[in-house]
Amino acid sequence: MSISDEKPWGGRFNHPTDRLVEEFTASIQFDKRLYRYDIEGSIAYCRMLAKQGIISSEEEEKIVSGLENILKDIEAENFAWTPDLEDIHMAVEKALIDRIGKAGEKLHTGRSRNDQVSLDMRLYLRDEVEKTLDLISALKSSILKAAKNEIDIILPGYTHLQRAQPVLLSHYLLAYREMLDRDEARLKECYDRINIMPLGSAALAGTSLPIDRGYVAELLNFPKITKNSMDAVSDRDFVAEFIFDASLLMMHMSRFCEDLVIWSSGEFGFVEISDSFTTGSSIMPQKKNPDVAELIRGKTGRVYGNLVSLLTVMKGLPMSYNRDMQEDKEPLFDTVDTVKGCLHILSEMAGNLKFNRERMLEAAAGGFSTATDVADYLVMKGVPFRESHGIVGRLVGYCIEKDRELSALTIEEFRKFYSGFDEDIYRCLTAEDSVNSRSSYGGTAKKAVLKRIEEIEGEAKGKGLKAKGKM
Amino acid sequence: MSISDEKPWGGRFNHPTDRLVEEFTASIQFDKRLYRYDIEGSIAYCRMLAKQGIISSEEEEKIVSGLENILKDIEAENFAWTPDLEDIHMAVEKALIDRIGKAGEKLHTGRSRNDQVSLDMRLYLRDEVEKTLDLISALKSSILKAAKNEIDIILPGYTHLQRAQPVLLSHYLLAYREMLDRDEARLKECYDRINIMPLGSAALAGTSLPIDRGYVAELLNFPKITKNSMDAVSDRDFVAEFIFDASLLMMHMSRFCEDLVIWSSGEFGFVEISDSFTTGSSIMPQKKNPDVAELIRGKTGRVYGNLVSLLTVMKGLPMSYNRDMQEDKEPLFDTVDTVKGCLHILSEMAGNLKFNRERMLEAAAGGFSTATDVADYLVMKGVPFRESHGIVGRLVGYCIEKDRELSALTIEEFRKFYSGFDEDIYRCLTAEDSVNSRSSYGGTAKKAVLKRIEEIEGEAKGKGLKAKGKM
Amino acid sequence: MSISDEKPWGGRFNHPTDRLVEEFTASIQFDKRLYRYDIEGSIAYCRMLAKQGIISSEEEEKIVSGLENILKDIEAENFAWTPDLEDIHMAVEKALIDRIGKAGEKLHTGRSRNDQVSLDMRLYLRDEVEKTLDLISALKSSILKAAKNEIDIILPGYTHLQRAQPVLLSHYLLAYREMLDRDEARLKECYDRINIMPLGSAALAGTSLPIDRGYVAELLNFPKITKNSMDAVSDRDFVAEFIFDASLLMMHMSRFCEDLVIWSSGEFGFVEISDSFTTGSSIMPQKKNPDVAELIRGKTGRVYGNLVSLLTVMKGLPMSYNRDMQEDKEPLFDTVDTVKGCLHILSEMAGNLKFNRERMLEAAAGGFSTATDVADYLVMKGVPFRESHGIVGRLVGYCIEKDRELSALTIEEFRKFYSGFDEDIYRCLTAEDSVNSRSSYGGTAKKAVLKRIEEIEGEAKGKGLKAKGKM
Amino acid sequence: MSISDEKPWGGRFNHPTDRLVEEFTASIQFDKRLYRYDIEGSIAYCRMLAKQGIISSEEEEKIVSGLENILKDIEAENFAWTPDLEDIHMAVEKALIDRIGKAGEKLHTGRSRNDQVSLDMRLYLRDEVEKTLDLISALKSSILKAAKNEIDIILPGYTHLQRAQPVLLSHYLLAYREMLDRDEARLKECYDRINIMPLGSAALAGTSLPIDRGYVAELLNFPKITKNSMDAVSDRDFVAEFIFDASLLMMHMSRFCEDLVIWSSGEFGFVEISDSFTTGSSIMPQKKNPDVAELIRGKTGRVYGNLVSLLTVMKGLPMSYNRDMQEDKEPLFDTVDTVKGCLHILSEMAGNLKFNRERMLEAAAGGFSTATDVADYLVMKGVPFRESHGIVGRLVGYCIEKDRELSALTIEEFRKFYSGFDEDIYRCLTAEDSVNSRSSYGGTAKKAVLKRIEEIEGEAKGKGLKAKGKM
Repeated sequence: MSISDEKPWGGRFNHPTDRLVEEFTASIQFDKRLYRYDIEGSIAYCRMLAKQGIISSEEEEKIVSGLENILKDIEAENFAWTPDLEDIHMAVEKALIDRIGKAGEKLHTGRSRNDQVSLDMRLYLRDEVEKTLDLISALKSSILKAAKNEIDIILPGYTHLQRAQPVLLSHYLLAYREMLDRDEARLKECYDRINIMPLGSAALAGTSLPIDRGYVAELLNFPKITKNSMDAVSDRDFVAEFIFDASLLMMHMSRFCEDLVIWSSGEFGFVEISDSFTTGSSIMPQKKNPDVAELIRGKTGRVYGNLVSLLTVMKGLPMSYNRDMQEDKEPLFDTVDTVKGCLHILSEMAGNLKFNRERMLEAAAGGFSTATDVADYLVMKGVPFRESHGIVGRLVGYCIEKDRELSALTIEEFRKFYSGFDEDIYRCLTAEDSVNSRSSYGGTAKKAVLKRIEEIEGEAKGKGLKAKGKM
Repeated sequence: MSISDEKPWGGRFNHPTDRLVEEFTASIQFDKRLYRYDIEGSIAYCRMLAKQGIISSEEEEKIVSGLENILKDIEAENFAWTPDLEDIHMAVEKALIDRIGKAGEKLHTGRSRNDQVSLDMRLYLRDEVEKTLDLISALKSSILKAAKNEIDIILPGYTHLQRAQPVLLSHYLLAYREMLDRDEARLKECYDRINIMPLGSAALAGTSLPIDRGYVAELLNFPKITKNSMDAVSDRDFVAEFIFDASLLMMHMSRFCEDLVIWSSGEFGFVEISDSFTTGSSIMPQKKNPDVAELIRGKTGRVYGNLVSLLTVMKGLPMSYNRDMQEDKEPLFDTVDTVKGCLHILSEMAGNLKFNRERMLEAAAGGFSTATDVADYLVMKGVPFRESHGIVGRLVGYCIEKDRELSALTIEEFRKFYSGFDEDIYRCLTAEDSVNSRSSYGGTAKKAVLKRIEEIEGEAKGKGLKAKGKM
Repeated sequence: MSISDEKPWGGRFNHPTDRLVEEFTASIQFDKRLYRYDIEGSIAYCRMLAKQGIISSEEEEKIVSGLENILKDIEAENFAWTPDLEDIHMAVEKALIDRIGKAGEKLHTGRSRNDQVSLDMRLYLRDEVEKTLDLISALKSSILKAAKNEIDIILPGYTHLQRAQPVLLSHYLLAYREMLDRDEARLKECYDRINIMPLGSAALAGTSLPIDRGYVAELLNFPKITKNSMDAVSDRDFVAEFIFDASLLMMHMSRFCEDLVIWSSGEFGFVEISDSFTTGSSIMPQKKNPDVAELIRGKTGRVYGNLVSLLTVMKGLPMSYNRDMQEDKEPLFDTVDTVKGCLHILSEMAGNLKFNRERMLEAAAGGFSTATDVADYLVMKGVPFRESHGIVGRLVGYCIEKDRELSALTIEEFRKFYSGFDEDIYRCLTAEDSVNSRSSYGGTAKKAVLKRIEEIEGEAKGKGLKAKGKM
Repeated sequence: MSISDEKPWGGRFNHPTDRLVEEFTASIQFDKRLYRYDIEGSIAYCRMLAKQGIISSEEEEKIVSGLENILKDIEAENFAWTPDLEDIHMAVEKALIDRIGKAGEKLHTGRSRNDQVSLDMRLYLRDEVEKTLDLISALKSSILKAAKNEIDIILPGYTHLQRAQPVLLSHYLLAYREMLDRDEARLKECYDRINIMPLGSAALAGTSLPIDRGYVAELLNFPKITKNSMDAVSDRDFVAEFIFDASLLMMHMSRFCEDLVIWSSGEFGFVEISDSFTTGSSIMPQKKNPDVAELIRGKTGRVYGNLVSLLTVMKGLPMSYNRDMQEDKEPLFDTVDTVKGCLHILSEMAGNLKFNRERMLEAAAGGFSTATDVADYLVMKGVPFRESHGIVGRLVGYCIEKDRELSALTIEEFRKFYSGFDEDIYRCLTAEDSVNSRSSYGGTAKKAVLKRIEEIEGEAKGKGLKAKGKM
């Protein structure tokens, strides 16, 4: 007895699949998320089969309306998902045959789940990359807005978490915008590698049926088709690449969140996150915790883990499709959800930060953060930099010993360390002077930062136009 | 206006939590899995509060029966899980207060979610390690049974996937049993580090209330309590250690599955996996694929990814509890499910393999796999090993050129390469002779393998007795 | 007492660096590899300082010739690398001051090691990406050449390591070429993000000195400069991106090598790797092991590990530069060496493979690998695909039971399963017919493969021209 | 022509190894680190061969003294390491044969590099684990000493980097000691799995020669021998386990270092790291950077990466030895060096920290860190905890609005929030009272901490005695 009535692939089998095996191998519980793309792809494929005369136009209409009905039912939550359906492809196909009979049995002609799943994943990820790009845009806008609003706030720039040199808060914020620009660029390039139509590769070797791959691509709005059927069914580069791009994006957000956590400590007190974006303690009544920032930072680990999962799965797999590759989906779905969730909430939170201008300025003025300015002052007086660095180092040592700030020293005290100091040295010692002196391109001077903001706004305008033609 | 009526921790807050934030920070959707342990821990904690006079015995009974009712409702799927409940601890506590009023507000006395979640995780993982150990035992039994049944099958042992020397299939199978022995040992040691009671650490500093930690430990059957409250709330070593142990376990299974995949190829043909443990192709009618083995191999990547996630989350976190640590749960739960699922199905599958004795023996006899035996033969005749290795190397080269096997050479041909060959050389040339000559402890000779089986059965008996006293 | 005489940054310090600390923090032992780029960058920087009047042209000449001499000495291995030099920047600067005195103390004016190391890394990696791209080209050529030479070899295409459908060896080989095309594209995009000039960002805030960043970029052949000084000194995206691109590249090579290892087993016997690319055993005289393929496969783990290292290092680092970032170098250098080494040796090895045409064809003919063709045959006769799949499944089951191949069945036997079979069914049953029927674009038919080869050769010509303008 | 004169395994080869291949596959450049263990193992093996009559006692003496001479030469740096030697095993064996002739050719009798390298790795790692344990001990002592010295310092305990409750610095420090206790326990268990003698497993199947494995174990001080030859040559669990244990150890250190970095910021100002353990800036004269702490934190990524490398290498490898496994060495060696270096320097640094008692106390007193104490106070007055939490939450809100501390409120103000407040509330409001109230086992009260210190000192004494019998 054959089991062909139960499994669409069961013709040669004598024993039914073990129940345990069925559950272990099923992907329907997570790949049902692809239903819309699976149906969209099947409709296009079916239209092509008809155009090529492989099925009749009557069959075409039956299949298309059957698929559309299934879609409606799924979206109305009227569709019974049972574990024995294996995966989204079988679930849809089986439902189709149940509903329209014989014609439904023709849909899978010349197609394999191997190329079908690649198509579904590409359609899905194409959408999700677009959404992710929108969310990056929103976060970039949120940052730009804050940078414009807070243009006069000065805080210490840190290296090694030690106060280094005063910078504008806007300059600091725009640094994150630069990172997001790179993330955006990488994702767009990834998008181009996703946006390729694999159908027609069949199981691994292509098909002998007279299909028209270009037409399917056209219907589904793909600018390119894959060039080698074996590669097409065994390629998951586009998934790995997306997860890597997401990893860097999470890394960038984790750094911003680390700063927010540190800045909202009582000791720094640079920022207050609004009540709506913090939570309390079940035991300590006074607590207001930056949970959102911590969770974003923590979720970075999750995305890194997803990257490692997929890279491990793919390493050393023989050609071409292997079932291990089913393990690409959950890491991808989880990455998409995580990165979108984090981008969304960070945009909102970033727009609701209350910066403590006084604490920041006070900190920027302390800690000898204008020492480099003094060294540069001497350089302009002709002292070689290394020598001037040494002089200022000793000056700072003297201040620490006497517990004083540089600006509190008399000109005579300055001259003990180098005779060439003049009264104009006092013009280098405030945080504001320091910031504004750094006016080379990319520097923190207000005028440099404003220039960069202007550039960004110019680009955005240009891109807006270009973007229309793009996706 | 305060939001204290909505959130148990809301006293100091002026604005309600953003809905988005609520969803982003909630863990209830996955940590509800801990409900049984959360309630069990709360019951024990409440009993202790009563014993210490912190609550009355009337309150104790109310709380305990309230918690028991909640447990019943959850198990009967009569409990409404709503996202605003944040986490399992809040969900249970809120339900309790809703049901029993004021008394319920006393349960959290002297306790924090920080020590509570550690307790829940330890109770949960203690159970799951026990289940995992049972599944390892089952797989070990399945392997042992096969090793005993197939004691006469000879196959080529491979290094570099090249035939190296003939071995018994039983010897091969028992190699995997050794790996599982180590996995078991590691998990038991991990168990001891899980099995420590953290409650009483409160938020991070301990509590000023007169609690009795030892009594809680006793009620919950913990042999030890944690020794430092700050460490107790910030420690996730036991989670990472479990995931690592699971990673090695998956790695071992992945190797076995790699062999099964290779062996069930048409070219090797060493094993047939039963129909019930394979699946077919949606396009190719002849296919019978070792999907289960492939998926286990693939799922190794998943567990590795979980390990990386958690290690990344914990790296560089300041003391003590940080919200990032909420990200410990999903990797752990996924690892538990994955490793248990794989162990279970591999046990079943390993008991349903049909080995092809003829193909294996034929392969073992070919490929010059007794060349080392010839070299050892010469060693026993006094030829230094390096010299004998060279002689046999040339012999093999000669055979390849002439397309013959070693056993097909005449004694004259042997003597062309070394004059000391005698007729007894032919006794070294069959796979069976070769196997049985390797009789040193741990070797593949039938008598060595039988001895090892005897040892294992002896240990199992001994352990059976010891084990009773253990967990 | 100050320690300024010993350390260029020692002005404010009262105690010398602990010897142990000096060794622990030093990077000179590995970053000396950057010497050429460090000097090249310093020369350009010095030329700009002179152009801007910050140093005199006399000082400029002293510095440039000093640096050139140091370069010569290093390349002649006449340079003393001592551990107390900290890093390559300090080593070169100190040597310069020792040689040319005061003028040397002016080189570091307006510059920090934070922007300097970013420059060095970008110069270095720009070179290495170019070399890597050349090696990818070579491997692609090697594959193309083999694809052209072996155009008539047919082997089974595998899915799940089970024979699926016959394919051309050339088609199989070109699948790897597709992967390399993607690797190449990713690396070129990464190159554009490397190729940006960071100098002038100074420590983190830019500089107050009147430098000309564009001029430095011009001298060093950079098309762009960085736009935000804080981002510039804390960005290691380009390093992570390169290591990821290398990870995918290694993954692709690992898959090819997995196939080579399996194919060179005695059981498959599809390929013989030449003696020069294999090694032997210290104990088994007959062994010839595919070590090179195994090592490439293994080294994939190494590159993955490097990726994880860097991602972990960067996660959650506060702005801007932190010393943790020194840990970017060894993973990068190791990745560069590994990926170049593997590409090089794989190119050579791929050109020295001896395919066993007969074994491959024999395998392709067996295992019912034309079953899909029979199903497609029925489809063209009007049988719905699902039904035809079931018919052929039962046919295969029948053959297995009777131990026969499809081509050995009589037409009567075919008709027992479906009455519509005609004599022309026999034209679907050979591996060659099967291959050649799959002629849709991207398929394995000889004519499709030849078309793809033609395309590739066309592109190569086109790209050759375009490429000239590019790098 | 054979190449047997050049390669000890070259008998069957017709073509010499490609030079490139030789370099690519050689491990001598890194595994020469194992020379001492390789020679020690060979001496023991040779003694056993003689005892068993496989070689003569004359040969034994020649071999032993030859090996001892080689050892001396290597240690005196009089040994020529050339790349064509492949690996440490071949290098030593070849040198031996060069020096003592024929007898040297007998050393490898019944042995393979597969079991030999396992032995070398186990001998090496056994030593290194012992050294690592010593370094952990030293760090634990350093922490204990600081905990005893600073017993009266109070600082805020943090959760979410927000001040939570006051704790003793000693309590904080001892939390790290707990982590190190677990690290120690894990390493000792790992040690037991390293400490097993694999020789006699030969290539993979054991040997037919009459060797005595137990005698080799005895000579090399191994309490156990491996039980299955195939497992023995393909097992790298002990390497992975060590790297994982090292990963957790690094993670613990990374957390301590994160705190040190944050605490040494100007804003926290809790700790000053001594000049000898910090470094300066090449541009900013005032900087004193916690580089050592940052580097330890960063090097955590490196060890995580090593773990991923090895796990990736081992995943899905077929039985038994595969050349991929050569890639186990560099990750292991790097991990050993990294973890030892970090432990060593952190011990030194931890002993040289200057804590700022005033800043810490001031911070502990601020930020409403005794709010939980007030809540607990109400609990003891009979207020249910949830209610009391709400009352105190509102009190804190009131204080924030009025910009006052809890201790500055009048009793009337307290009573506005709850009528039952009494004058004794003021006894809950200082950091010192708060700390000392938390006296349950494991809590931060001075008396609880002193008790724990006493326990530790007691254990140390006990362990000292036990330890003698152990290793």
